[in-house]
Formats: sequence, C-alpha cells, structure tokens
Amino acid sequence: MSYIRCQVERMAGYVPGEQPKVPGLIKLNTNENPYPPSPKVLDAIRAGIDGSLRLYPDPTASVLRQKLGNMHGFDPDEIIIGNGCDDILNLCVRAFCGECEKLAYFWPSYSLYPVLANIQGATQVELPLNDDFQIETHPALLAKLAGVKLVFITQPNAPSGVWLQKVELQRVIEETDGVVVIDEAYVDFAADNCLDFAREYENVIVARTFSKAFSFAGMRVGWAAGPKELIAALNKVKDSYNVNRLSQVGAEATLDDWAYFENNVQRIRATRQRVIGKLAEWKFFVYPSQTNFVFARPPAPLAARQWFEQLRERKILVRWWDADRIRDFIRVTIGTDEEMDKFLEASEKAIR
Amino acid sequence: MSYIRCQVERMAGYVPGEQPKVPGLIKLNTNENPYPPSPKVLDAIRAGIDGSLRLYPDPTASVLRQKLGNMHGFDPDEIIIGNGCDDILNLCVRAFCGECEKLAYFWPSYSLYPVLANIQGATQVELPLNDDFQIETHPALLAKLAGVKLVFITQPNAPSGVWLQKVELQRVIEETDGVVVIDEAYVDFAADNCLDFAREYENVIVARTFSKAFSFAGMRVGWAAGPKELIAALNKVKDSYNVNRLSQVGAEATLDDWAYFENNVQRIRATRQRVIGKLAEWKFFVYPSQTNFVFARPPAPLAARQWFEQLRERKILVRWWDADRIRDFIRVTIGTDEEMDKFLEASEKAIR
Repeated sequence: MSYIRCQVERMAGYVPGEQPKVPGLIKLNTNENPYPPSPKVLDAIRAGIDGSLRLYPDPTASVLRQKLGNMHGFDPDEIIIGNGCDDILNLCVRAFCGECEKLAYFWPSYSLYPVLANIQGATQVELPLNDDFQIETHPALLAKLAGVKLVFITQPNAPSGVWLQKVELQRVIEETDGVVVIDEAYVDFAADNCLDFAREYENVIVARTFSKAFSFAGMRVGWAAGPKELIAALNKVKDSYNVNRLSQVGAEATLDDWAYFENNVQRIRATRQRVIGKLAEWKFFVYPSQTNFVFARPPAPLAARQWFEQLRERKILVRWWDADRIRDFIRVTIGTDEEMDKFLEASEKAIR
Repeated sequence: MSYIRCQVERMAGYVPGEQPKVPGLIKLNTNENPYPPSPKVLDAIRAGIDGSLRLYPDPTASVLRQKLGNMHGFDPDEIIIGNGCDDILNLCVRAFCGECEKLAYFWPSYSLYPVLANIQGATQVELPLNDDFQIETHPALLAKLAGVKLVFITQPNAPSGVWLQKVELQRVIEETDGVVVIDEAYVDFAADNCLDFAREYENVIVARTFSKAFSFAGMRVGWAAGPKELIAALNKVKDSYNVNRLSQVGAEATLDDWAYFENNVQRIRATRQRVIGKLAEWKFFVYPSQTNFVFARPPAPLAARQWFEQLRERKILVRWWDADRIRDFIRVTIGTDEEMDKFLEASEKAIR
C-alpha cells in the first residue's frame, strides 16, 4: 500500500530551469531580468531588516494591494498578492477546479499548468494553438470548452513569445462557463495587456509577477486582479501569511521607482529586437516576441538540440525541451547586450 | 451558477490572529517570539541584498537542508523546506489525502487543520482529546482511525500547551494506515521531541518552524523531516521556488548562531514558569505548558471573555475563541518579562 495519493504517485513533478552555480555562466534559461533591482528597492529592503522580522507579516499585504490598485485602477479587494505568480496559479486551481473537474490550457504553453492539474486530480483539456502559436476559435476548439471550470491562457504566450490576438481571447472568455485566468507574467515587455478583461468580465482573472520586468524573482512576489467574488475565493484558499515582510517592502518600493524599471524594460526590448534581427539575417526562424525571450529555430542542417549543446559548451545556458511541436526550437532569455553578443557569436559559429 | 468550488464557497477561511498596528500595544496573541532575530542573522540577510535578488532562489534550499540534516541526523533527501510551516502542512494534505478521503486531527488543536481539509474537500475526522487535553487511545478512538489517510497531531499541543504522552502518540502511529504528521511548531520550548518517530516509522513526518523559537515569523520558513519516499511526494506538489533567497540565507544564519536562540528559549521558559506560578497563586487554572504560551482559565466569577476584554482595554492583546471546550480559557503568548508584568498586573486587577 502506498501512503501517497495515486495522482501524485504517478505524476512527474514540474522541472524548473536549472539554477547552476558555475562561475562565468551566461544564464539565459529562466527568463530572469539581467539588470538588478533598483538601488531604492535594495535600500528599502535593508531598512526593513530589524527586530520586526520576529513578527508575522501583514497577511493580505494591504499596502502593496493599495498601491497596485491605484496604479492599475482596481479596488484593493480586487487584488491578491502571491508568493510568486505560481502561487496565484495554484490558488486558482484550488478555488475554481475540483478533483475530476475540467481544467483547460492552451498548448504549447507554460508546462506548470498540467502539473497543477495533476496535483489537484483535475481532468486536463489541452487546447492546441495553431501553427503560428495563436488561438483559433474554430468550432472544434470551442466544443472543448464545454463544462470547463478553469482555463489558463499565457499572454503573451510562452515559450513562443507571441502576443495572442485579443479578439480570439475574448471569444474564449465569452464561450467559457468557468473562470479564465490570463497569465501575464511577461506582459510588461509587450505593447498591450488584458487588464481591461479583468475589469469587464465576471469570470476573468489577470495574473502578474514581479519576477521578470521587476528583477525580483529571488523574492517571490506575484499578484492577480479580478472581480471581488473571485478574489475573495482565492483569499479563502491561500496560506494566511504567504508573502514575507521583506518581499512586501521590496515590491512596494519597486512601484515607487517605476522609471528605473521602465528604463530596463526599454533596454531589454531594444536588445531583443537586435537579437531577432541578427538571427533572422542568418536564416534562423524567430517568432515575433512580446516578452523578454525569443523562441528560435535554427536553419538546417543545425538541429535545435545541437545548437543548445554548442551554446552550453561555451557556458551559455538556454532552454530546450524534448517535446512535440517545440523540439525544433530553443528559448533564449534576453540578457545584457554583452551577454547577447556572446550568444550571437556562438550561434553564428554553430551555423558555419 | 457559481465559479467557485462548492467546498470553498461554503467554507469559512482560516482567521489568523490580528496583526494590528496600534502603537504601544502588547501583542501576546500570535505566539511570536518577543526577542529579535540575532544580529548575525540580520547581518547575513543584509549581506544577501544585492543584484542576485533578480535570480530565482535555490528551488530546494540545498544548503539549509544540509545544515538541518547535519544538526538533527537526517539525510538532506529526508528534509523539505516550506514557506512557513503552514506551507508544509498544506503540502501534506495535497500529497497524502485526496478529495473525499479521510483527514483526521485531534481536537481542540490548531484550527488550520479543518480549513486545509475543507479546501481539499477531504472528509474530516475529529479525534477528541480527553479532559486533560491528552490523547487517550481507547477502542472508540482507534476505531475512528480506520481508513484515515492523514492524521495531524500538534506536539506540544495548541492551544492547551501540554506535552502529549509519546506512548499514546506512538499507538496512534502504529494503528494508522495513513501518514501521521507531528506538527512540532512549539517543540523548541519543550523538554523532548518526536524526531525519533520520523526516523523509525515509514509513515511519520515531523514538521517544524523558524517562526517561534527562532524569531523569524516575518520571513516564513518551516521544514519537515521524514522518510525519503514521503518527502519526495511533498517535493512533487510543492511550488518550485517556494522559499525566497533572503529567507533561506536568514534561516541558515540562524542555525549558525544557535547559542543566541537557545538563550532566548531559556529566558522564555523562565518567564513562562513565573507567569504560571503567579496565575496559579491567584487561583487561575493553567495547563502545564511546554510551549511559548499559556492556556489559562480565570477563577469565578471572572469569565474568559471578560478577562480578554479587560486586557484589551489596557492594550494587551491575547487570544480567545468562542468555541466548544475552549471558550472558558484565554491563550497568552509569553512576551518579555516587562510585558508579562503588565499582563499580570492587569490580570490581578481583573479578579479584584
């Protein structure tokens, strides 16, 4: 007899990108921001280090919710803070989709969704993106939404990096009886966002993170906005003190130093366009990215895996998955210009 | 139609103790440590504040697991780190007890257990403690363990503060087909512990926290030790990056400065004995506490609620529950000697 739930026993856990401690490594594998948090953020965290760490944090991160609400036009009750955005995604599963109920997600996309479904024992419904990695709401796809309790959509999508057409996304929202979670982890690098859907629709939640645009992956802060009733349900299932004191302080200071982070985002966008241009020149196929990474297929005869391995030999770590529809590509985080020059140099060598 | 799972819709969320921001308040309501983290811990956190916060933390907190393993005689694979001990308790539910499966807990005890069961949709089995708040393994109680997948035991118990007889606890372990989680949140204030059970039995996990004895409630670090197979299952269901960088650094530094914390624990124990002695002298009934709090019933005609309210008027915040079996008591965290003098003074006034 096993002590472990059968769903958990038979599932594979989520495999996060490697966090190796090799000196001199160029780490372009987990979409971290190459620029540090702002000096003001670091100062604010330093100022929070005192005897008060003995006390529990504010369970609902009131100050941070107030600031985010002011900034994005939501009431604080329409916002929840998570221990990273993954915490938010997990809470959505727990609040909206029970064991044996249907959880849908577009594919290929963030590989955590099926893992979260497995842990819950939910029935997975895979919604295929078309060949351009776009949502196409043809009748066969809409039919799959019947009885679905929860849909995850990554906007812009990962690992492709593309912006999903809002009109198609809106169609999915309107045709779904359940909750639609728009996972906007990378949206700060895009030209548009979907917060308007979280304001308009009673079944939409938009999830965000401080990990990417705000250089705060190490401190785990995510948030979500949506209708009060849905946010209240997430609050019921969340861990009381899910976000620690220093992470709250650092995230608050981040919002107070917006120009610093906006500038970093602009630099990353510029570097991204330069990298895409160079790769295209060398006949790599690259999807139009609205994120801080690019998803690229090398020109024949170079295989994606070979490219991945040759980069690795030069201490450049990127992400490659041995999975249907994506195994011909690698995903490369946009680092500093210097890091990307090394990546480009190594890539050019790989096709010679 | 509701978007929310029916279990979640109908349940009440967990109500954490208040975290009011009233100046001059004596906060004896959430069992925080009255002494700050050690200067070395604060220094270590300060030293961790740099650009590396842009990078994800070590997903499995390897250094911390290694240190805890060395200290307590476990392999690092027999240890998992949580975002607070509540994170660990939640992971145990998710790994070991599915929807409609039986989750048991002794009662009265930590009020989070039924909430976690509700969120999972598990069937709750309440195991009553006897009139001394001790486990009594009579046939009727053992019969209730049939088919149970997960049992939570708080050792020492809360809110009573008493040490549960290990022989009775061992009986429960041996008579249970499922996993037994011994929640030792307060064990550092006790004379004994149950880590030996986590080494001996294939179905026992011991959960611990840095929040109480180690003055780290604000930074959310808990851990658990148990058989590799059970810990591996918890790893599958945990959030990849559940513990942030600074919390890992701070917890590591805590273990390196053991004498500082041991000294605080001794002070709290001494204060506790003094408080118990005074209350007993004034005819309050107090359970023998092995924790950093006392659970006390006032002498007639003073009711617990009146005592609670009179303390509150004097800006002394303690915990009172309007619930069966415990509404005649209040729970008082052991603060500094100065804080407890004020508590004692106000309590003496309350019985005059």
